[in-house]
Amino acid sequence: MSAVNFALGALAGAAATAVAADAYPSMMPTLGLNRPQIELKYFDFAGAAEKVRFTLLMGGVSFKDTRVSFKEWAELKPTTKYGQLPEMYLNGETKPYAQSGAMLRFAGAITGLVPKDPIKALSVDEAIGLDEDLRREMRPSIVISYDQTIKPKEKARKIKELREKLVADQIPKFLSHFEQMLGNSDYLCGSSPTIADAQFLVTCRWLGSGVLDHIPADIMSKYPKITAFRERMETTPEIAAYLNKPK
Amino acid sequence: MSAVNFALGALAGAAATAVAADAYPSMMPTLGLNRPQIELKYFDFAGAAEKVRFTLLMGGVSFKDTRVSFKEWAELKPTTKYGQLPEMYLNGETKPYAQSGAMLRFAGAITGLVPKDPIKALSVDEAIGLDEDLRREMRPSIVISYDQTIKPKEKARKIKELREKLVADQIPKFLSHFEQMLGNSDYLCGSSPTIADAQFLVTCRWLGSGVLDHIPADIMSKYPKITAFRERMETTPEIAAYLNKPK
Repeated sequence: MSAVNFALGALAGAAATAVAADAYPSMMPTLGLNRPQIELKYFDFAGAAEKVRFTLLMGGVSFKDTRVSFKEWAELKPTTKYGQLPEMYLNGETKPYAQSGAMLRFAGAITGLVPKDPIKALSVDEAIGLDEDLRREMRPSIVISYDQTIKPKEKARKIKELREKLVADQIPKFLSHFEQMLGNSDYLCGSSPTIADAQFLVTCRWLGSGVLDHIPADIMSKYPKITAFRERMETTPEIAAYLNKPK
Repeated sequence: MSAVNFALGALAGAAATAVAADAYPSMMPTLGLNRPQIELKYFDFAGAAEKVRFTLLMGGVSFKDTRVSFKEWAELKPTTKYGQLPEMYLNGETKPYAQSGAMLRFAGAITGLVPKDPIKALSVDEAIGLDEDLRREMRPSIVISYDQTIKPKEKARKIKELREKLVADQIPKFLSHFEQMLGNSDYLCGSSPTIADAQFLVTCRWLGSGVLDHIPADIMSKYPKITAFRERMETTPEIAAYLNKPK
């Protein structure tokens, strides 16, 4: 299996890496290494891994960003821990860790993008939970698009029905909550970025991408604070370098 | 609105409380109080709040366990943060926190039931993610049971179809993963309980309750390690006192 890797250090730059190490020295010793060696294995798209990639990028932590093609996946799937990607390998160990939400929190712990104060962390996890609720509402219209047992015409009708309902009800409901959560702050939970911002940025880019039929790409434009948040996140040097990297 | 409350201290006992405070003194000062005053507001059943209740019980942390009736809920819902329960109130503040997964991690942080080592915490969050995946598979058959737009006969047929598929495929797949995760350990992530155990116990009790049509109550009996785990958790003094409390 050949995988497309890139060394993140080259993107994030030595300056960003040094800042992260200085800012959060206390987390690193518990890992038994000054800097954990991380490989993140996922498909060659954003999906469930992107929030973890964004967190590591924001924290200036280098990682091996292995991309798996669908052709490779057929062979790889039976060898994975739970038949899923992403998987994360630490310090060259052969046994991976699974679950993107777990990797997000791990990445947050080693980069300081999870507050140490339990009450502040509660707000961050609340924002993450709200984002997951929005994604849970989206899920039936995604799952049905992969369902081989439904005839194409009936499937198209059902997807349209579900997505139009989402655009009318659930998506505005959740986006209004996030708009209010941002308030006058630069980030969801105050003046510093956290893992909640990394996760919500992925949602903003997904909903606003126009790739989902019946969900207009300008659906976010009614939310000025979310729009400014997305712009702020995407112009962070580490995120910008990653997003603008030539394919 | 009248709510049924009970003081947990009377259940957990002074001994358990003292153990928790001694074992994890370092978390408490960050809360600005020796012991946070917690009110957990939810319906009068297990649902999304039970994992938080179990964690606080296991950690010997007293909390006000407010139960909301469905009659009260109609009036309460518009006043909640996101139209959802549970909500958690800290230190008598009027503004609540939402999201049960966030409350679980907060409860874990103040009781020491989340490991401080980020790699150990990664395993705990992986177990939680796996449990959430199982619940996500269950969800369509639950959601449809509340769907008023489907005729009763068609609904019953669809629920049967979905649940029989779950019993044949997804539930055994996930339970096998948990059986293997337990291995020769007393708990999902080693020899000490964590928030992952609190969450998985709720799933064990739900799937093994017989309340879900077409999911046989003895579905767990093929998994000796899970069965022993459930027994071990349910006979923990704090959990046993809670579960055996007269209604």
